[in-house]
Amino acid sequence: VSVSAYTTSSSKLLFRQLFEKESSTYTYLLADVSHPDKPALLIDPVDKTVERDLSLVKDLGLKLVYAMNTHVHADHVTGTGLLKSKVAGVKSVISRASKSKADHLIEAGDKIYFGDLFLEVRATPGHTLGCVTYVTGDGPNQPQPRMAFTGDAVLIRGCGRTDFQGGSSDQLYESVHSQIFTLPKDTLIYPAHDYKGFTVSTVGEEMLYNPRLTKDKETFEDIMKNLKLSYPKMIDVAVPANMVCGLQDLSKSSVESVST
Amino acid sequence: VSVSAYTTSSSKLLFRQLFEKESSTYTYLLADVSHPDKPALLIDPVDKTVERDLSLVKDLGLKLVYAMNTHVHADHVTGTGLLKSKVAGVKSVISRASKSKADHLIEAGDKIYFGDLFLEVRATPGHTLGCVTYVTGDGPNQPQPRMAFTGDAVLIRGCGRTDFQGGSSDQLYESVHSQIFTLPKDTLIYPAHDYKGFTVSTVGEEMLYNPRLTKDKETFEDIMKNLKLSYPKMIDVAVPANMVCGLQDLSKSSVESVST
Ligand SMILES: [Fe+2]
Ligand SMILES: [Fe+2]
Repeated sequence: VSVSAYTTSSSKLLFRQLFEKESSTYTYLLADVSHPDKPALLIDPVDKTVERDLSLVKDLGLKLVYAMNTHVHADHVTGTGLLKSKVAGVKSVISRASKSKADHLIEAGDKIYFGDLFLEVRATPGHTLGCVTYVTGDGPNQPQPRMAFTGDAVLIRGCGRTDFQGGSSDQLYESVHSQIFTLPKDTLIYPAHDYKGFTVSTVGEEMLYNPRLTKDKETFEDIMKNLKLSYPKMIDVAVPANMVCGLQDLSKSSVESVST
Repeated sequence: VSVSAYTTSSSKLLFRQLFEKESSTYTYLLADVSHPDKPALLIDPVDKTVERDLSLVKDLGLKLVYAMNTHVHADHVTGTGLLKSKVAGVKSVISRASKSKADHLIEAGDKIYFGDLFLEVRATPGHTLGCVTYVTGDGPNQPQPRMAFTGDAVLIRGCGRTDFQGGSSDQLYESVHSQIFTLPKDTLIYPAHDYKGFTVSTVGEEMLYNPRLTKDKETFEDIMKNLKLSYPKMIDVAVPANMVCGLQDLSKSSVESVST
C-alpha cells in the first residue's frame, strides 16, 4: 500500500485546525508568520466559535485579513459576518458561483495571497453549485506537501450529499476526479467536517479507500441517490444567512441576535 | 509576541490525531513509515473508537506494536485491552507509578522505540500519581519541532484537575515547570483532551497564555482548590478498568460486554 501522510513542512506557514462539536465542522487558520504583519485567514469559521478563533488569532499575534467559505453551508451559520463586525478590515470571501454576497467573489484559478503564501481556487461543484476547494500554492517556499481544503466535496472516506442547493452527483464525481484526485498523492485533505474524529487524509488515501469516490461514476450516482438522508435540520436558517456571509450587511446587534 | 507553531516535519513520521467526541479525548497514531514494517503506536486509545483506529492502521499498512496510556483515565475506558484482544502482538504500556497492569511498565527516562523513531518518557505527576508525558526524541532524523503528548498534565490553556487519583496541585505545578516548560518553545503540545475544539498548542504558547500555569505556585494551588468540579461521571467504572489497561486479562467477550 503506497500511502504517505506526512505533515506539512514550511518555515512560513502557521497552521491550526479547529473543531466545532455541534456541527462537527473544521475551521482552519493559516498565516504567514515570516511576514512582518503575520497576515492570516480563516477557512469555514462558525458563528458559535468566533470568540475562540479571535482569541487564538490575538494570542498568536496575527492580523486576520480574510474570512473565507468553501461554500454556502446548510448545517451551521458561517462566522464570516461576525468576524467582519468584530475585526476591522477583514474581507469575506466566497465563490461567485455560490450567488452569495461577500467582499471578494472568487473564481477558479484565482490566487488568494496572505503574505508570501497563497491559496489557489479550484471549482469543485456537486455538493452545492458554488463549492470550491482551496489548495496551497505550488512553488518554492509554499508548504510541502500541499494542503487541500475540500469543504464538503471530499470528506474523509466520504463526501457531501448532493440532493440540495444545486447539488449533482454527476458533477461532484467529475469535480473530485478532475480537480482533487489530480493533485499530488501526498496532498493533505482537510475537509469541512468529520463525524468520526478523523482530522486529515491524503489524496492518495482517498483514491484508494474512499468508499464512494473510488467507484465508477454510475455506481457513485446510485449510492448518492439512495442515501435516504433526512432534511438538514438547520438548512432553512443557515442557507439564507450564509448567502450573505453571515448577515454581513446588518448591524452588529442584529447579527448577534440571529446567530445565538 | 514570540510564538511559533509550525507543524512537525520528518521524512519518517506518519502522524494522525484522532478525536472521540463523547469524552473529548484525543488519540494519537504515530508510525515510522521509513521502516519496512511501518511499526506504529497509539497513545490514549478509547474503547469506543478502537474499530475506527484499527481500520486506519490497516488502510495505512501499519503494524501496531504499542497501545499506550499517558495515565489511568477517569472519564473513559482505554482501548488498550480491546486492541490487545484484536491484534496479536500489541503490547500495552503505562507507567509503573500508576500501579496498573500492563505489558510494559515504563519509568522516567525510558525510551520507547518504533522503527528508528522513539518517544522518551517524562514523569509528570499531579493530575494523577502516575501521569507521564511522552516526548518525541531529540536527535537527527527525529521529528522537528519535537512533540509532547502531555495527557492531562498540560491542556491547551488549561490543565487536568488534581482532586482525585493521588492528584496534587503542588506536584502538577512542579511537573509542568520542570518537565514540560523546559522543552524547546516550539515543541508541539498534544493533550489528551480539548473541550473547545483546539487541536494543538506549543510550549511557548502555554508559557505565555495558560491561564493557570503562568501564575505563581500559590495562586495556581488556589485556583485548583476552588474549581468546584463535580464528581467525574465515569470514574467508578473507568478507573478500575483502566488500572488493568482495559481489562486486558479477561476474555474477549467479557471485554466487549463491559465496554459497550
Ligand atoms: Fe455543506
Ligand atoms: Fe485524566
